Amino acid sequence: MSYTILTGDRATGLLHLGHYIGSLKLRVALQDDHQQSILIADLQGLTDNGHDPEKVSGNILNVMADYLAVGIDPAKTNICLQSGLPALSELTMYYANIVSISRLERNPTVKAEIANKSFGNSIPAGFFTYPISQAADITAFRADCVPVGDDQIPMIEQTNEIVRKINKIAGSDILVECEPLLSKVTRLPSVDGKAKMSKSLGNTITLSADEKEITAAVNKMYTDPNHLKVTDPGQIEGNVVFTYLDAFHPDEDLVQELKLHYIKGGLGDGKVKNILEECLQETLRPIREKRRKLINDKGMLLEILKHGTEKAVVETNKVLYDVKQAFGLNLFI
Amino acid sequence: MSYTILTGDRATGLLHLGHYIGSLKLRVALQDDHQQSILIADLQGLTDNGHDPEKVSGNILNVMADYLAVGIDPAKTNICLQSGLPALSELTMYYANIVSISRLERNPTVKAEIANKSFGNSIPAGFFTYPISQAADITAFRADCVPVGDDQIPMIEQTNEIVRKINKIAGSDILVECEPLLSKVTRLPSVDGKAKMSKSLGNTITLSADEKEITAAVNKMYTDPNHLKVTDPGQIEGNVVFTYLDAFHPDEDLVQELKLHYIKGGLGDGKVKNILEECLQETLRPIREKRRKLINDKGMLLEILKHGTEKAVVETNKVLYDVKQAFGLNLFI
Repeated sequence: MSYTILTGDRATGLLHLGHYIGSLKLRVALQDDHQQSILIADLQGLTDNGHDPEKVSGNILNVMADYLAVGIDPAKTNICLQSGLPALSELTMYYANIVSISRLERNPTVKAEIANKSFGNSIPAGFFTYPISQAADITAFRADCVPVGDDQIPMIEQTNEIVRKINKIAGSDILVECEPLLSKVTRLPSVDGKAKMSKSLGNTITLSADEKEITAAVNKMYTDPNHLKVTDPGQIEGNVVFTYLDAFHPDEDLVQELKLHYIKGGLGDGKVKNILEECLQETLRPIREKRRKLINDKGMLLEILKHGTEKAVVETNKVLYDVKQAFGLNLFI
Repeated sequence: MSYTILTGDRATGLLHLGHYIGSLKLRVALQDDHQQSILIADLQGLTDNGHDPEKVSGNILNVMADYLAVGIDPAKTNICLQSGLPALSELTMYYANIVSISRLERNPTVKAEIANKSFGNSIPAGFFTYPISQAADITAFRADCVPVGDDQIPMIEQTNEIVRKINKIAGSDILVECEPLLSKVTRLPSVDGKAKMSKSLGNTITLSADEKEITAAVNKMYTDPNHLKVTDPGQIEGNVVFTYLDAFHPDEDLVQELKLHYIKGGLGDGKVKNILEECLQETLRPIREKRRKLINDKGMLLEILKHGTEKAVVETNKVLYDVKQAFGLNLFI
């Protein structure tokens, strides 16, 4: 079965190993058999960076380079820019009339995100209402499958609520319901073992990290704080080095062996870190080298993004037409 | 001094005498010396009619006919349709990132309107955030003057706040601050003396009302409930018949004389109502007749609206360009 898939990223920084293992690898795998679009969500990136727009505009081509470096193929996957698609903003306006403020307040994903951010008393309206805009994105591409983490399930539910309401107004199924494609990979922890990866905390390994940065990151990686002597028995749970080995090392048997040895005692952190570092260096070397060439040809990146956006303009305008038709507002066509 | 003026109406019903005296007459007067645009706000009309879109779509041409019937001249005033201007939705998305939820909650106009409506626990997101969308409208036309009632002053203040924030981000004055042009006319009461005119309450006189409807409306008009006998002294305050005479009768001296007589006693409601009815019949007859011809030529109304909207697309896209430039997002231009 072939799906119509929409994924995307807020263009607010360099993509890192968390993105790679959590979604980019899956996209590369999906692009052969499915109709996949990737939206660089610059407008959504602005919802909590309205006063720092450079953080968004300055990262669009970085994200493009990251995509192509990991193997996303623009001939198979359509990459497009959110701000270049007026239909998304227009659909947001229509959907906002059928979603209540109290429904938005109940959205657990937004609730959690607001709690995580330091908005204080000034949550931007665009941030608060972004589930509506996300529903516009998903429906505008007629996506029936959206790869997400389980924390994003409420967003899919809210989108499908909107789909059903619009279809009821239209009197026919003009919009498509979508289903979440849950990632099997657990969320990759940050280098320091804290829940949230953050560029400003310096606890990530970006796809463009050079050898020294990788070495430094692995060196400071959180392990078992009670594993003081090599001979001590160590703990695997919450041990970031082992979580990364699980995620990245190709030899599962070796990782299993290392784990048993570590638990029993007699395996030092340094040795495990060396194995992880070698594996990460090998994983990132080709990506970094490809990426370096790509980022040096910004004109080409821009051209690919422009071409993808133009294709998406046509596609999303068709959905906008259907929704405007439901509201009786295609007066001039 | 010549202003750039934006006004508009939600297309949710036939325009009535309240619109005529409160704003339409002023627009006719302003169109000779100022650059005036009128926005038929169908999207804003949907913010509290999302589940009844026919109420909006079905009234767009009615409102067009009302405009032309009262003397708004499309050669002088550019009439355009909100849903036909994608830049307005796009600007709303950008502005939403720099306006906080708590700022919207403090907007007294929206507060009062929400209290007036029976949303219960489900205030539509689009309604709650419409001050942002209104700021998009005003700034997209580079309006420096917006005719409003004094209850709308907070909307102008909120717009100017957005203007200053965007200009700060842009580093130059790309958007224009606007000032309110306060209507000198007090708000026309409904026929039954209740604060709110409402088509469903049947307490308005529309511009398309026929002779019988006008007669019936004047007959049931609220006067002084204690003025039982003709010889009784009567009260002018709150007496809708006199308020309408003040607003519509061309002979101010006669109205003054009638007031004094009524206060003293000896002037019956019937007689005063006859004078008002005659005056309203004379006011509305030419409007109604002109309107009847106009509404029978829907193709022509549509053509005027389409032409005006096309002009406004060019104009509003320029402002969108400037705002996107401020956010660094004109990638493909």
